[in-house]
Amino acid sequence: MSHRSSPQLRGRPVAPSTGALTPLGLHDVTITGGFWTRMQDLNATAIIDHAEYWMERVGWIGNFDAAVEGRLPADRQGREFSDSDVYKLMEAMAWEIGRTGDPGLERRFTALVDRIRPVQEPDGYLNTMFGRRGQQPRYSDFEWGHELYCFGHLIQAGVARARTHGHDSFVDIAVRAADHVCDVFGPDGLEKVGGHPEIETALVELGRHTGERRYLEQARLFLERRGHGLLGEIDFGPEYFQDDVPVRAAEVLRGHAVRALYLASGALDVAAETGDTDLLDAVTSQVARTVATRTYLTGGMGAHHEGESFGQDYELPPDRAYSETCAGVGAIHTAHRLLLADGGAEHADLVERVLYNVISASPAQDGRAFHYTNTLHQREPGTEPAQDEPSPRAASSLRAPWFAVSCCPTNVARTLSSLGAYVATTSADGLQVHQYASAHIRADIAGGVEVDVETRYPEDGLVRVRIAATPPEPWTLSLRVPGWCPSAVLRVGEEEREMGPGYADVRREWAVGDVVELVIPLAARWTWPHPQVDALRGQVAVERGPVVYCLESVDLGVDVALAEVVASDAPADDGTIVRVPVRLRERIEATWPYRPEPDAAAAGEVRDVTLVPYHAWANRGPSTMRVWMPVAD
Amino acid sequence: MSHRSSPQLRGRPVAPSTGALTPLGLHDVTITGGFWTRMQDLNATAIIDHAEYWMERVGWIGNFDAAVEGRLPADRQGREFSDSDVYKLMEAMAWEIGRTGDPGLERRFTALVDRIRPVQEPDGYLNTMFGRRGQQPRYSDFEWGHELYCFGHLIQAGVARARTHGHDSFVDIAVRAADHVCDVFGPDGLEKVGGHPEIETALVELGRHTGERRYLEQARLFLERRGHGLLGEIDFGPEYFQDDVPVRAAEVLRGHAVRALYLASGALDVAAETGDTDLLDAVTSQVARTVATRTYLTGGMGAHHEGESFGQDYELPPDRAYSETCAGVGAIHTAHRLLLADGGAEHADLVERVLYNVISASPAQDGRAFHYTNTLHQREPGTEPAQDEPSPRAASSLRAPWFAVSCCPTNVARTLSSLGAYVATTSADGLQVHQYASAHIRADIAGGVEVDVETRYPEDGLVRVRIAATPPEPWTLSLRVPGWCPSAVLRVGEEEREMGPGYADVRREWAVGDVVELVIPLAARWTWPHPQVDALRGQVAVERGPVVYCLESVDLGVDVALAEVVASDAPADDGTIVRVPVRLRERIEATWPYRPEPDAAAAGEVRDVTLVPYHAWANRGPSTMRVWMPVAD
Repeated sequence: MSHRSSPQLRGRPVAPSTGALTPLGLHDVTITGGFWTRMQDLNATAIIDHAEYWMERVGWIGNFDAAVEGRLPADRQGREFSDSDVYKLMEAMAWEIGRTGDPGLERRFTALVDRIRPVQEPDGYLNTMFGRRGQQPRYSDFEWGHELYCFGHLIQAGVARARTHGHDSFVDIAVRAADHVCDVFGPDGLEKVGGHPEIETALVELGRHTGERRYLEQARLFLERRGHGLLGEIDFGPEYFQDDVPVRAAEVLRGHAVRALYLASGALDVAAETGDTDLLDAVTSQVARTVATRTYLTGGMGAHHEGESFGQDYELPPDRAYSETCAGVGAIHTAHRLLLADGGAEHADLVERVLYNVISASPAQDGRAFHYTNTLHQREPGTEPAQDEPSPRAASSLRAPWFAVSCCPTNVARTLSSLGAYVATTSADGLQVHQYASAHIRADIAGGVEVDVETRYPEDGLVRVRIAATPPEPWTLSLRVPGWCPSAVLRVGEEEREMGPGYADVRREWAVGDVVELVIPLAARWTWPHPQVDALRGQVAVERGPVVYCLESVDLGVDVALAEVVASDAPADDGTIVRVPVRLRERIEATWPYRPEPDAAAAGEVRDVTLVPYHAWANRGPSTMRVWMPVAD
Repeated sequence: MSHRSSPQLRGRPVAPSTGALTPLGLHDVTITGGFWTRMQDLNATAIIDHAEYWMERVGWIGNFDAAVEGRLPADRQGREFSDSDVYKLMEAMAWEIGRTGDPGLERRFTALVDRIRPVQEPDGYLNTMFGRRGQQPRYSDFEWGHELYCFGHLIQAGVARARTHGHDSFVDIAVRAADHVCDVFGPDGLEKVGGHPEIETALVELGRHTGERRYLEQARLFLERRGHGLLGEIDFGPEYFQDDVPVRAAEVLRGHAVRALYLASGALDVAAETGDTDLLDAVTSQVARTVATRTYLTGGMGAHHEGESFGQDYELPPDRAYSETCAGVGAIHTAHRLLLADGGAEHADLVERVLYNVISASPAQDGRAFHYTNTLHQREPGTEPAQDEPSPRAASSLRAPWFAVSCCPTNVARTLSSLGAYVATTSADGLQVHQYASAHIRADIAGGVEVDVETRYPEDGLVRVRIAATPPEPWTLSLRVPGWCPSAVLRVGEEEREMGPGYADVRREWAVGDVVELVIPLAARWTWPHPQVDALRGQVAVERGPVVYCLESVDLGVDVALAEVVASDAPADDGTIVRVPVRLRERIEATWPYRPEPDAAAAGEVRDVTLVPYHAWANRGPSTMRVWMPVAD
């Protein structure tokens, strides 16, 4: 086995060996200011610590000690998949150590490795839930046991460590786990798949790191096996874990949203490494239909609480939007892979939308409480969640410190710590900037390019790119014009060009100090639903740049159920505060909610009411909230 | 113990000893023609047979044989509550035997009794799921075990038998079961409640039959114990089984809809027998708010698939309406008890609405397939359910022959066979007719009243009541004018009166042959949603009399998603067929379902399209369907 440590892999969460674009890693992109610096700081100073604190407190880390000390199953804490949250925390830590080199975090990371290492069995198996006397046997519950899912997250954490630190004893644990999985489930082994995808993408990524084709082959096997009824019957039906139809035969993402998105990511990884363009085309088309018909304005996915699953086409009820934070993470994984595969700007648009309106909406302003689900309409002011014990996951009101199923906080943490890797890519031709933040970007193209990005985006739409290092040969700088922006202005020296959605390309010989400016108009705008989204009929939303806004009762003064907006003029936007004209209806008390005549629209006085960014809602106590507001006549 | 067999109880599913109105039994009211005769015939010739056939086939009846033969748990079939479906079938059979005297059905009933009797243990316990070697111990799972729920249905079946046939060995089984429950859970016994209410109302009814106060007291105890956290934590939270708040402290029905409605019925039974007006007022107010804010146009209850539960106020998505058939049965039980308690016409309105639009919507036209859920909007045509095995319960497309959880078919059967009991009541003052069908009604008031009702309702709105027997003293005939009818015409001899919703009372000295006519205008009408029902904004429905109509793709020719209705004039209604003017939109293909401008309404040609009664939909193969139709500009 050859342990490659190619600079092509360093600091990259995703590193396909083929594709239209080549990723940069988090060592290549340093975010230096603005919105995402604040989020990365929050992650560094609060979220990671908070997740570690809670997993010690509720005993999910302690499960590993209990395993070593022979106290399992008696002392086991948490759900069957709790090991995976420890691994996701370690993945976040690994990226974070790579990003900042924090020595204290390095000590905490290796301390965790020391507690996990002795739990791995001689054959590579590692799980605190199965296989001991008094526990269920290994691999006795593929539907719900999550053993392959836990291995997936362990391996992903190992990949993060390998790509930020290099090979060490933790990477060894991951490699031994992957070897074990291949030994058990290989072509001549158990013909099974896991109920929750994740192992597929993890094995491909480890294969990319080690050069070991066996891991890729195992991922391919898992992928091809799915959709043939190898999983047993469950109440939710086989589509819950995408076992209803083979991956390449499906037409749209369906079933459990996180499972569907993780599987799509794994399929894209396999397609990139095997040159399977049929598979790539199938997943591309599934995702396109999913974005077109099964995605919330926030980029959130998953309309049903039942089974945490996608609804049918255009079935997008704002008041029951499940929109799990982890589905946001999965959507970023899938869209980023599609971007690398085909270079389509729409994939970067989706990444941006999800980052600003799902990932950022989950953590509280202090980084110590989270939304698991991200509803677009809060009908009743929720109540303060428990502060001293895990909450149910779908409380759907105020953010909770921890959940009985707490996949989301660690998923947010690993996303924020690796955020740099989503900012820019390269191709043979040049550098592409997809996400806008003040940043320093180094790219190993044509002998070395460096640029500085300066911007207050998404507060202000001016993006200024200064060339800090360049080879003499010409190369192309590409800046994304978001899909929601009908026309941006590109300035290069004296030249000014109007640019529509897609990439604004500037190809030339560059000199250090050259400046390119992109001006993206951000003014708040009304957004209307497709007529088939019945749940949004007669309602309108407000977006400003990539940020979705909402009306919160704290700003309205009364329950948002009584508000109607006058959408004739554009929303008021002074660059800082967004306001919309609102009329209040009288509350109609009736003994039956159906009526022989339509009610007149609100007729009262119009007043301007402040909207808040959706990601900032529910930070001022219990409230009602809506993203989609009824339109006054 | 005194076994009363008062004529006040005979043939009555519900027989409170106090209240504004006194029920009549199914021996007092013979439905002689029209819609409900057809449904009762369907029940007699198909539904009951079909349910018995399937429960033999899937082994739910065989579980009792397996118990006797010592083959449990190895041979046990079905879910933990499958015994209850056998009892519900027996309740349906008991009412049906009472209604028709069918000797073949009597033989089948007693054959079932012979198979169940030997399973009852010496202390009265009876359940095929618990307590044997290799099974879970008795009363080890109050949250999900359904033991008290099964006892409830056994006792209700016993009550039906007692009130149609008199005391026999099956009633003995029910009495011994009730005694067992009181022995175990009495004031000095186990302080527990069951996860699924049903035992409460059953115990009160058996107490009414036997005069045994202990049963009433036990029901009261169960009721008062609920809402204090005696049930363990479950994922759905304590409101799922109404253990969040004491019954008398709650403000609205919430959680699992069937559980909530069965509990409300039990509370009303206890209130009626104990004179607890606080409890009566509390439940009356909870139901009023539930009807005002949490009920579908069909009368269906339960908005969420997740937990089969009520949504929040005004959260009534038509495309995810769960509206379980059994919740319809529960709503009838609750509303009928409220009607008996306070005589309010709104309760009879709800019974009527649920009968025509939930209960009747469940069985297929041949009585051999059923809807478990009753959605108001079918987005995708659905596929033919399995014909040779039980289906998942919430398939929500075409009706299925049987379900893995098959509570609904037997619940429909017991409702249809006892339907006569919901038609009319008496008071000291006279006779009240609540539901309209051609019928002969005998009432033991003032020495004996008989009337003949002749009507083609709900096809035609003329209801003709002829006095067939009367005492010389004056008494009051009251005919319900439904709440949806602004003005009906009452004719008595030469006299004609306009009557608004409520009861049209005629008090006089009657002679045999006297005729009263009520003319209820039935013409098809538009119905609009309360403005807080966001999911229905910009949409309109059509009702004709008590019958909700819907647009089915079979009639439209294309997917109903493309239809907009022109609601300026009243719907066309020639007395047989209802038509509405429809414009078709072009299908808008877009890569993102949100848009910078609102789309124009459909602008094409207007054509008249036939609507079908909601209860008749999905009888012509896979289709899309909507009750609420977008309104064209």
